[in-house]
Amino acid sequence: MTTSGMRDYLDGPYKAARDVVRAGLAADAELFDLAVTLPRDEYRDRVLGLLERITAEGHPARGFPKENGGGGDLGGFIAGFEMLAFGDLSLMVKAGVQFGLFAGAILHLGTERHHEKYLADAISGRLLGCFAMTETGHGSNVQALGTTATYDASTGEFVVHTPSPAARKDYIGNAARHGRMAAVFAQLVVGSENHGVHCLLVPIRSEDGQPLPGVTLSDCGPKLGLNGVDNGRIVFDQVRVPRDALLDRYAEVDVKGNYVSEIENPDRRFFTMLGTLVQGRVSVGGAAINASKVALAIAIRYGDQRRQFGAPGSAEEALLLDYRMHQRRLLPLLARTYALHFAQAELVDEFVRIFDDKTNEKQPTSGRVVEAQHDARSVEGEHDARVVEGEHDARVVEGEHDRRALEAQAAGTKAVGTWHATETIQACREACGGAGYLAENRLATLKADTDVFTTFEGDNTVLLQLVAKGLLTDYRESFGKLDPLGTARFIAAQAVEVAVEKAALRPLVERLRDAVPNRSDTADPDAGLRDDAYHSGMLRFREQHILSGVARRLKAGIDAGDEPFDVFNRCQDHVIAAGRAHVDRVVLEAFQSAVRNAPEEIRERLKDVYDLHALATIESERAWYLEHGRLSPGRSKAITALVNELCAAVRPVAVDLVDAFGIPGAAVEVPMVVPSQHE
Amino acid sequence: MTTSGMRDYLDGPYKAARDVVRAGLAADAELFDLAVTLPRDEYRDRVLGLLERITAEGHPARGFPKENGGGGDLGGFIAGFEMLAFGDLSLMVKAGVQFGLFAGAILHLGTERHHEKYLADAISGRLLGCFAMTETGHGSNVQALGTTATYDASTGEFVVHTPSPAARKDYIGNAARHGRMAAVFAQLVVGSENHGVHCLLVPIRSEDGQPLPGVTLSDCGPKLGLNGVDNGRIVFDQVRVPRDALLDRYAEVDVKGNYVSEIENPDRRFFTMLGTLVQGRVSVGGAAINASKVALAIAIRYGDQRRQFGAPGSAEEALLLDYRMHQRRLLPLLARTYALHFAQAELVDEFVRIFDDKTNEKQPTSGRVVEAQHDARSVEGEHDARVVEGEHDARVVEGEHDRRALEAQAAGTKAVGTWHATETIQACREACGGAGYLAENRLATLKADTDVFTTFEGDNTVLLQLVAKGLLTDYRESFGKLDPLGTARFIAAQAVEVAVEKAALRPLVERLRDAVPNRSDTADPDAGLRDDAYHSGMLRFREQHILSGVARRLKAGIDAGDEPFDVFNRCQDHVIAAGRAHVDRVVLEAFQSAVRNAPEEIRERLKDVYDLHALATIESERAWYLEHGRLSPGRSKAITALVNELCAAVRPVAVDLVDAFGIPGAAVEVPMVVPSQHE
Repeated sequence: MTTSGMRDYLDGPYKAARDVVRAGLAADAELFDLAVTLPRDEYRDRVLGLLERITAEGHPARGFPKENGGGGDLGGFIAGFEMLAFGDLSLMVKAGVQFGLFAGAILHLGTERHHEKYLADAISGRLLGCFAMTETGHGSNVQALGTTATYDASTGEFVVHTPSPAARKDYIGNAARHGRMAAVFAQLVVGSENHGVHCLLVPIRSEDGQPLPGVTLSDCGPKLGLNGVDNGRIVFDQVRVPRDALLDRYAEVDVKGNYVSEIENPDRRFFTMLGTLVQGRVSVGGAAINASKVALAIAIRYGDQRRQFGAPGSAEEALLLDYRMHQRRLLPLLARTYALHFAQAELVDEFVRIFDDKTNEKQPTSGRVVEAQHDARSVEGEHDARVVEGEHDARVVEGEHDRRALEAQAAGTKAVGTWHATETIQACREACGGAGYLAENRLATLKADTDVFTTFEGDNTVLLQLVAKGLLTDYRESFGKLDPLGTARFIAAQAVEVAVEKAALRPLVERLRDAVPNRSDTADPDAGLRDDAYHSGMLRFREQHILSGVARRLKAGIDAGDEPFDVFNRCQDHVIAAGRAHVDRVVLEAFQSAVRNAPEEIRERLKDVYDLHALATIESERAWYLEHGRLSPGRSKAITALVNELCAAVRPVAVDLVDAFGIPGAAVEVPMVVPSQHE
Repeated sequence: MTTSGMRDYLDGPYKAARDVVRAGLAADAELFDLAVTLPRDEYRDRVLGLLERITAEGHPARGFPKENGGGGDLGGFIAGFEMLAFGDLSLMVKAGVQFGLFAGAILHLGTERHHEKYLADAISGRLLGCFAMTETGHGSNVQALGTTATYDASTGEFVVHTPSPAARKDYIGNAARHGRMAAVFAQLVVGSENHGVHCLLVPIRSEDGQPLPGVTLSDCGPKLGLNGVDNGRIVFDQVRVPRDALLDRYAEVDVKGNYVSEIENPDRRFFTMLGTLVQGRVSVGGAAINASKVALAIAIRYGDQRRQFGAPGSAEEALLLDYRMHQRRLLPLLARTYALHFAQAELVDEFVRIFDDKTNEKQPTSGRVVEAQHDARSVEGEHDARVVEGEHDARVVEGEHDRRALEAQAAGTKAVGTWHATETIQACREACGGAGYLAENRLATLKADTDVFTTFEGDNTVLLQLVAKGLLTDYRESFGKLDPLGTARFIAAQAVEVAVEKAALRPLVERLRDAVPNRSDTADPDAGLRDDAYHSGMLRFREQHILSGVARRLKAGIDAGDEPFDVFNRCQDHVIAAGRAHVDRVVLEAFQSAVRNAPEEIRERLKDVYDLHALATIESERAWYLEHGRLSPGRSKAITALVNELCAAVRPVAVDLVDAFGIPGAAVEVPMVVPSQHE
């Protein structure tokens, strides 16, 4: 292989956009300045300066429609945004708050007037804003937010209010210092009726940075990491905003004070709105994967230079990376990083396919509402719904099925990618010993900054649960309720076994029962272990088996007359395992496609990395396969032995493989690592 | 159970010493001040102030002999030191550097003149010191340090020198700002002969804080955590110290320039010296376990108060800790924390038994050297030895066998305890979502501060490897070489199978083959799952099986004529698994003893926690048991189901169980947690 060939292949279709960010990072050491040494407010202002600079360079604008002053290149924007994770992650997160969340809410939830009034300022950074969704009392369960926006028909205004301490907006980026406006999520009350959570634009600071009347702003204080982002709290005391402050793409309050929405079902309306914000989740997953690359590049280069102990009598001590245990600790994580890179690329492709087509919609209702079999849950992918009684909404925006699938894919990739980052950076830190603990070697900062990724933009556990619930409901094309209760009832009503038989994978499962070796295979436990079809067969079998097992347990619980919430809760670990199994399979198959489509000069090398990933994945789940008769003890041990062999096979090119990530030198040339010979 | 009964039992014999530290922490909020908000040097000086205060309160002196101004209560000292982990960990670490390492080196490696001259000042904090062992180029492999101390017979001085950048002393606590003297580990060169690594006291700063001539001091800069400790670097340029600067308990250079040691074998001498410093490792393990308690106390109380989602139609959302997945994430870690607490208590008891008896020795040779079957490796427990050719040293200090066992136990408990802390604090942080990321809620700080524990005082991977090598050599009472080569040769020479039969556990293994259910047990997979003997049988079987497997592989490799280093390296993951299996068994059996000896009022409750720990341990290794025919699939699944049930059984008393840790309120009453009703 050539490193540049591998790098080009990893960069994929957005190579140009990546190279722009890469060049920016490479050109300016300030982007890697150890801002952790600065007092907090100075660090925050430094990050603001960096934000203004990348804005001036036109990067964020790339992702917005041309008529709003953008570049209309959503894919390049996402790819470039992910690359910011090579630099200071506070900048990446602050950019995400400003452009992905705040400007994104205006773009996706607002209409023409909001776009014209605010979008150019938001994407140029002249108007810094907050995304004020989370409250002290509610993070995952957004539908239960406490903040209210009550329409006052006498003045034509909304009154935004924080009715309790738990309803305080919390952890809000840009709130503590820089934000002048907030996209506030609040229960919309018109007359005596609560129409559920909607988003309004509320000014919070004057031009000179003072809190506006009725707005109390405070600082979340120091955090484990990301201290360059000014997270804060917002309390509203009867703050009045005009009627058109409501971002009214999906619902509006007319001049006479009538609430009007094209989407009748309040759950469905809520999840439709949230669904437009999937970009944040896509980006966080990508950023986490890129942060993993930085950590691996540092630790693998270190392991290729650092010597300790070794063969008696030899002139030099042995390189750390020549130790089996060191290979075991780092190389399967390197392989999984490759896998996730390709899975993320597929996700971004799908995101662009759906959103590039949709971004310029101004009216969701112009002939694009169709009858469909989907239910309100179709666009969940976001959070559990609290139960709200109400009839099904039979109308659905065209493309909603694709969006639902996209949201599930984004949720799964985000969960697995961010946990991977936490695990990988931890392993890299430990693999570098005390040197890894020093800020100057970047691993400490990477670890602290990325840690929150596993719980922001959706708690990973909740996200995997949603992936699984989506799969359960996929058994049928129309659905009942969306919550634990509803899922359980649905399963009970639909006769699960029938549903299982309908599932697309059923024939494959049957073939597997014959094809996958089991206890009788000890004569040749190595046979076919490097066969793609074996890997995907194993992962598909596991996914489908866990899923149908969950479905059966839910049905049995309901049949026994137990409380549906209790039934669901008893299976919760099982449900989450199903979500994980699904994502594992999707990631594996993305890597398989990537190997198939790779240029010949790198294909063989990529196949080694793929095999390492595939077999390490099966190895990590071998208890399950052994329990379910899909691995014999002999074959299970053979897989462990082969993972060791593949580590040894990948080791000589490990530095090439991290060089192929194309991380600008300043991000990885830390004091403990001598500049690579491979650069 | 009563919480106070459980607390008293956990406090054990050193309850009084624990209560002193507890009262000190409870009385002073400054000990929990968020020093992370301070500029680094201010934070360091604040921690120094805290150190002076606990010193004035007499705490550190407790651990030193009465004739040196101490209290002669080693056990109380260790127990109290561990309690410091409830407060600011920078204080704990700085105290460890000053009293455990610096003063400890003087006590254990020095003789009367050093004790009289320095010890009172060191334990009173008037003389702040460094423990200058690690270098930029060598952390784990201490025998290969580069710093030299060359005897100049013409002046009767040692010349301490840093011959290369890699020989720079690095990560040294107290070096960047406060230390005035360093216990420096260096190759002792007399005439043309290198006698290996010895320790000398070298002044590095004047009374007014200026570096002394020839000493270059620098700062390691910001770290992931522990920023209240002034870690720095030291470079020596031909620094001269008098002959009596050598800590000469085990070796001296006489007035005429002759090197004299009672221990002829240089390896054995080195490891004997290092072995006396085991206290640091004992303390770090204990501190890590206590840090885990703090994190669990915070996260479990939060989970017992925080509501999110829940059963449809109910008046309130459900408590996080009522969700199965939340229980699964936290409660097995709580159970393992109990297990490690008891294992640590056993370790401290053994440490006290050995060292309280030895602390007052002034001459190691006064009739206390005996013939023995032990080899130089007996006191390894510290680091791999580089191969040094040389004959066996047949003389051994009385009690050496016990010390070797103690060192292995300390290494294992440290490795498992510190990894446990990293895992537990991470799980707790994630279980508290965004709130867990804020410094004010302490989890972020705990996480950052404890992270380095897995690699300092011995890299955990290296430590487990040493535990395993000790076990391998335990197959016989006399040994060959101590290094990978030697171990392999030994195994080859001894006919492993015979050795296995000699092992003490052999009869047990045989009984297990009959007693442990296997594939045929599906008729009643639950039978005996809560039986202690089943648990220890399973863990002993695993330990012994992995160990004998490693031994056989080493022998086979050597028999095949492969390079011994390669043979060992191929098995490295297997060797480390053996170490881990051993520690798991020791920890389990410590918990079993604790349950047996518990007062009746708490025994039943403790048994639930024990069962959760035991079965979660077997569950986490079920792949191995399935591969080796010691679990049937049905029984494996039954264990998973029982772990879930035990989580549910422990959940109602989970808050009581963390209250029983007796952590002062200020350490756990963080903003996100309402003060507990149980206090």
